[in-house]
Amino acid sequence: MNWEQLLQRVYDDVAPSLGEGKVADYIPALACADPHAFALSVATLDGAHYGVGLTRTSFSIQSISKVFALKMALSLEGVELWQRVGREPSGTPFNSIVQLEREGGVPRNPFINAGALIVTDALVTRCGQVDAVSRLIALLHQLSGSSRVACDPEVAASERTWGDRNRSLAYFMRSFGVLKNAPEIVLDAYFRQCSITMTTHELAQAGLFLANDGVDPLHGGRVAAHSEVNRINALMLTCGHYDMSGDFAWRVGLPGKSGVGGGILAIVPGLASVAVWSPALNAAGNSLVGTLALERLSERGGLNLF
Amino acid sequence: MNWEQLLQRVYDDVAPSLGEGKVADYIPALACADPHAFALSVATLDGAHYGVGLTRTSFSIQSISKVFALKMALSLEGVELWQRVGREPSGTPFNSIVQLEREGGVPRNPFINAGALIVTDALVTRCGQVDAVSRLIALLHQLSGSSRVACDPEVAASERTWGDRNRSLAYFMRSFGVLKNAPEIVLDAYFRQCSITMTTHELAQAGLFLANDGVDPLHGGRVAAHSEVNRINALMLTCGHYDMSGDFAWRVGLPGKSGVGGGILAIVPGLASVAVWSPALNAAGNSLVGTLALERLSERGGLNLF
Amino acid sequence: MNWEQLLQRVYDDVAPSLGEGKVADYIPALACADPHAFALSVATLDGAHYGVGLTRTSFSIQSISKVFALKMALSLEGVELWQRVGREPSGTPFNSIVQLEREGGVPRNPFINAGALIVTDALVTRCGQVDAVSRLIALLHQLSGSSRVACDPEVAASERTWGDRNRSLAYFMRSFGVLKNAPEIVLDAYFRQCSITMTTHELAQAGLFLANDGVDPLHGGRVAAHSEVNRINALMLTCGHYDMSGDFAWRVGLPGKSGVGGGILAIVPGLASVAVWSPALNAAGNSLVGTLALERLSERGGLNLF
Amino acid sequence: MNWEQLLQRVYDDVAPSLGEGKVADYIPALACADPHAFALSVATLDGAHYGVGLTRTSFSIQSISKVFALKMALSLEGVELWQRVGREPSGTPFNSIVQLEREGGVPRNPFINAGALIVTDALVTRCGQVDAVSRLIALLHQLSGSSRVACDPEVAASERTWGDRNRSLAYFMRSFGVLKNAPEIVLDAYFRQCSITMTTHELAQAGLFLANDGVDPLHGGRVAAHSEVNRINALMLTCGHYDMSGDFAWRVGLPGKSGVGGGILAIVPGLASVAVWSPALNAAGNSLVGTLALERLSERGGLNLF
Repeated sequence: MNWEQLLQRVYDDVAPSLGEGKVADYIPALACADPHAFALSVATLDGAHYGVGLTRTSFSIQSISKVFALKMALSLEGVELWQRVGREPSGTPFNSIVQLEREGGVPRNPFINAGALIVTDALVTRCGQVDAVSRLIALLHQLSGSSRVACDPEVAASERTWGDRNRSLAYFMRSFGVLKNAPEIVLDAYFRQCSITMTTHELAQAGLFLANDGVDPLHGGRVAAHSEVNRINALMLTCGHYDMSGDFAWRVGLPGKSGVGGGILAIVPGLASVAVWSPALNAAGNSLVGTLALERLSERGGLNLF
Repeated sequence: MNWEQLLQRVYDDVAPSLGEGKVADYIPALACADPHAFALSVATLDGAHYGVGLTRTSFSIQSISKVFALKMALSLEGVELWQRVGREPSGTPFNSIVQLEREGGVPRNPFINAGALIVTDALVTRCGQVDAVSRLIALLHQLSGSSRVACDPEVAASERTWGDRNRSLAYFMRSFGVLKNAPEIVLDAYFRQCSITMTTHELAQAGLFLANDGVDPLHGGRVAAHSEVNRINALMLTCGHYDMSGDFAWRVGLPGKSGVGGGILAIVPGLASVAVWSPALNAAGNSLVGTLALERLSERGGLNLF
Repeated sequence: MNWEQLLQRVYDDVAPSLGEGKVADYIPALACADPHAFALSVATLDGAHYGVGLTRTSFSIQSISKVFALKMALSLEGVELWQRVGREPSGTPFNSIVQLEREGGVPRNPFINAGALIVTDALVTRCGQVDAVSRLIALLHQLSGSSRVACDPEVAASERTWGDRNRSLAYFMRSFGVLKNAPEIVLDAYFRQCSITMTTHELAQAGLFLANDGVDPLHGGRVAAHSEVNRINALMLTCGHYDMSGDFAWRVGLPGKSGVGGGILAIVPGLASVAVWSPALNAAGNSLVGTLALERLSERGGLNLF
Repeated sequence: MNWEQLLQRVYDDVAPSLGEGKVADYIPALACADPHAFALSVATLDGAHYGVGLTRTSFSIQSISKVFALKMALSLEGVELWQRVGREPSGTPFNSIVQLEREGGVPRNPFINAGALIVTDALVTRCGQVDAVSRLIALLHQLSGSSRVACDPEVAASERTWGDRNRSLAYFMRSFGVLKNAPEIVLDAYFRQCSITMTTHELAQAGLFLANDGVDPLHGGRVAAHSEVNRINALMLTCGHYDMSGDFAWRVGLPGKSGVGGGILAIVPGLASVAVWSPALNAAGNSLVGTLALERLSERGGLNLF
C-alpha cells in the first residue's frame, strides 16, 4: 500500500470540512484549541511511519488514555476487574449516571467515564495514587518510544476544577462499594491521566501493540496476552465512541477510541495503528473531522474489518 | 486449515455443556425443542462445507431472519431506511420499549424487535404483505441453494397467539408515525418471517455472501454492495446479541446474529460463514452452547477479527 | 358563602386569560372546540346549584370518566383491583410506558391511561363489553339526575382511529398478563367511556357524592363506602393531573381530576363539588383556564384543604 | 374529642405490630435504636397536649427537618426557590439520581434528598454555613417551646462518614449549576440538620403552626403566610413519603413527613399536629408502626381530610 499517497488523499477529502463541529469548552484549557488543526499518523508493523498535518504537535489525549489504563489494569488485576465493570455498550452518553443506579453502581464498560474511574481505582489500589499515573506514563514512554509523553498540569488542574460530574459518578459508585479508594484520590489520578499529551506520531506508535497481537514492535517483548489484545480491540469497537460507537463501526469498521481533545486511536489488526487529531467535535463528543478522516482512510485503503 | 478436525475438537469441547441453559418457552412450538440438540456447519469461500452434529435438521431461525430482511430492505429502500431505525447498540433487552419512548418511536437498531418490525414494515411497503415474506424466502432459496427453506405455519400461528409484546411495540411506533403500515399486517409478515426453518448447513451457505464481499458464491452475481456488507457485518458485531452483544464480541470476535430458536450465524470476512444450533439459551436469550462453540472455534481456529 | 358573587369574581379573574393554551388536537372531534369557551358550576350539599358561563353546554369529559369508572370497579372488585394497579403518583406523562416495563406491567395508578385501562378491564370482566359502559352511564344518570349523559359516537370513533398509543399500552399489559380481556374489547369500552359528554352542571352534581361521604345527595342512598370516598379523593389529589398533580395540589389544594376535553372536577369534602370547563390546555394536558379558575375559587372561597 | 381515649385505643391497635419492620442501619448511630420503641403525641390548637408512649424521649428527626428548612427557605428566598426545585411527586426512592439527569439537575421536590440539599443550599447562601443550621434550631426552639432541641454530633459525624450517595447528588447538581455553594459545605449543614433530635412532644408542638394557618400558637405571631402553609401541607401530602406518598394519602389522608429515624409529623389543618415515633421501617423507609398508628388515628378520630 502506498501510505503516503493514501494519507494525502484522505487529507484532501477532509480539508474542506476542517472547522466544522465544536471544540470542547467544558474546561478552559481545551477551549483554546484551534478548530482547524489536523494531524493523521500511521505506524505499520514493519516499523514505518507515515503522516500528514501537525503530527509532531502534542494534544490532550483525554479518554484515549483509557485504552492504556485498561491494558495496565488487566495485567495487574486480570479477570477480577470484570467484577466491577461490564463489557457492554451503554447506549448512553459518556457521563450518564442513570444506568449506574439501575445496575447497582457497576458501570457498563471501561470506556465510559464511570467505568474508566473503576479502572483507575484498580490502578490506584495496585500502584498507589502517584505511581498509578507515573507507571501509565512509563508504559506510554516504552510503547511510543518517546519520553516526551507527560501530564499537562494546567489541563489536570482545569479538569479538577470542573470535575463535579465525575466527582458525582465516583461518590455514587463509592456509595455502592464498587469504587474501593477514596473518590478524591481516584479522581486526582484520573484527572492527571486524562491530561496526558501526545502527538499523533507518538500515539500511533503506542497503539501498535494492539495491531501486533500484544507484542511491542519497538522492543520485541510481549506486553499483552493474545486474548487481551482481542478483547481490548473488541471493546474499542463496541464501546469506543460512547453513544456513537455503532455509527463508528458502521462507517469505519475498525476498533477505535476517541478523546474529547479531538484525538482518535484506531487499530488495523495485523497491519497498522492510526492516530488522528482534529479538535472540533460532533454532537456525541468525538472528533468530527477525525472520524471523517478514518472513514475515508478505511474506504480508500480497504481497511474495514468487515 | 483442517476444518474437519477443528469442528470435531470444538464439538468435544462443548459436548459436556449440552443441556445447560433453558429452551425458549414463550411459545409452545419452540418449547418442545431438545435441549441437547447440536449442529455446527461451516461454509467456506472455496465452496466446501464442513459440519458436525444435526446439520441436516431444520430449526426455527427466528431473529437470524433479521439479517436477511435487513439486506432486502437496504436493497429496496437504501439510506431512507435509516430515517426510521438507528444503528446503535441499545444496551437493553430485545423487547424493551423504554428507549422507544425517549427517542420518539425510533428504535435503536434493526436487530432488536422494534427495529426489525420497521425493517419488515419497509418490506411490506415495497413488496406487499404476502410478497414481503415470499421474496425473503426466495432470497434464502437462492443464497442457500436449497428450496426446502420455508415458513413453519405452526410456529407462525404460535407467535401470533403469544405476540402481544410485539403488538405493543408495533402500535407504539405506529402512534409516532414511524411504522407506516397497519400493525397487524406488519406483525403477520414478521411472525411468518420469524418462523422460517433452516438447517445449519443451509444457513451457513446462505450467510456466505457476507464473507464474500456481497457476491453470491453459488451463482457468482453480486447480491449486496461492498459497503452494505461491511455495514451489515458491523451491525451484527455491535448489535447482534441484544444486551450481550459486547460479551459476544469480547468472547468470539466475529459478527454474529442469534435467534431464540437456538441458532447463531457468524461471519468470518474473507473466509467462511458459520452456523451453529443448540436450543438451550443463556439469560440474554442467546444459545448457550452455540455461543460457547463459536468462542472455541474462534480461539482454536484463530478466527477472531481483533 | 355567597356563591353567586364568588363565581362571578372568579370569572372576572380568569376572563382575560381565555384563549391561552392549546385545544387538544390529537383527534379531530376535539380539535374543533372553541378555545374561549368557559363554564363553571358548583353543586352544594344543601342541594343548591350555582354557575357561570356555558354550564348547560355538553363537552367530552374524557379522563374525568376515570373517577366514576374507578368508583364502579371498587364496588365490583373491592381490594382485588389493587393487585393490578398501584396508588402512587407516576411522575410521568399520562401515556408513558416506561414505568410499566420496569414494574412488570402494573401501572402506577388508576388515573394514568394504563391504569384506567385496567379499571375498564375489570368492568368488562364483571359486566361484559357493552354493559361496562352502559352501566357506567346509568350510574352517571343516577348521580347527575340527568338522562342526557351519553357517549358521543363520533368522539369514540375518532379515539378508536387515533388510539394506537393506548393500544400499545393495552397489548403491553396483556403481554404481562395484567390485562385480563382481549385488548380490542377493553379499548372499545375505554374509548366509549372517554367519549361521554356532560355539562358542568351535570358533572358538578354527579361528583357531589364524593363531598358527601359517599351518600347520593339526590336520592339519599349510599353509593360508596366512607373509606372508598376518602381514598378516591386522596387519589384525585395525588394523581389527578398526571405530571402536574403536585402543582395542582400546590395551587388549588383540592382533589381534582382533569380531562383532555378541558374539563376538571374538583371536590370540597363536606361542602361542594365543582366542575369547570375550558378547552385550551396547558403543557401537561390540563385545562389552563380551568386550573386558574379553581385556583382563584379556592383562594377567594377559602376552600383549600390545607 | 376524647384524645386521651383515642390515643390509648390507637396504641392498643398497633402494639401487636411493634418490632415489625427494620431499623435503619445505613449509619451505626441509628442502627442501635430499639425497634419496639413507640411514642405518639398530639398538640391541639387550644394549647392542649396528649400522648402515649415515650413522648419525652428524643430521637433523630432526620428528614422531618426538611419541613422546617423549607419553611425557612421560603421566608428567605420566596418564589425564587422554585427555579431550582420542583413541586411534583417523583415516583422514585428518596435518593434516586435518575430523574436529576433527565431534568437538568433540578430535583422534583424539596422532600427527596436532592431537593432538600437545594433547600439547605439556599439557607447556606442566605445565612452562611454555620448559621444555616443554628437559625433552623432557633426556629425549632421557638416553635416547640423547648430549648433542648439540638444536633446530635455523633449522628452528624456518622452521616458524614456514610454520606457518599448524598455527596454524589450534591456534586451532580453542582455540575449543572443548580447547587450554588461548594458541595462539602452544603453537605456539612445538611448532615447537621438531619441529626437534630426532638421528642414527639416537641415535634407535635413545633408543627402546630401548620395546622394554625401559619400563626405560632405559643407566641401568637405569624411565622408563615397563609398561602405558604397551604403549600407546605400540599407538598407534605403529595411528596412527604417518597415513593409511598400515594399510599400514605390513601391510608391516612393527612399531610405528613417521615424521617428515617422512625418519626412522622402529620398535620390536621385547623385542629391539631401529630408526631409519632417508632424506629422500625417499611420497605420505602417510613416508620411501619408509625404509619399504622396514623392510619388508625385518622380512622378512629375521623381526621381524614378527604
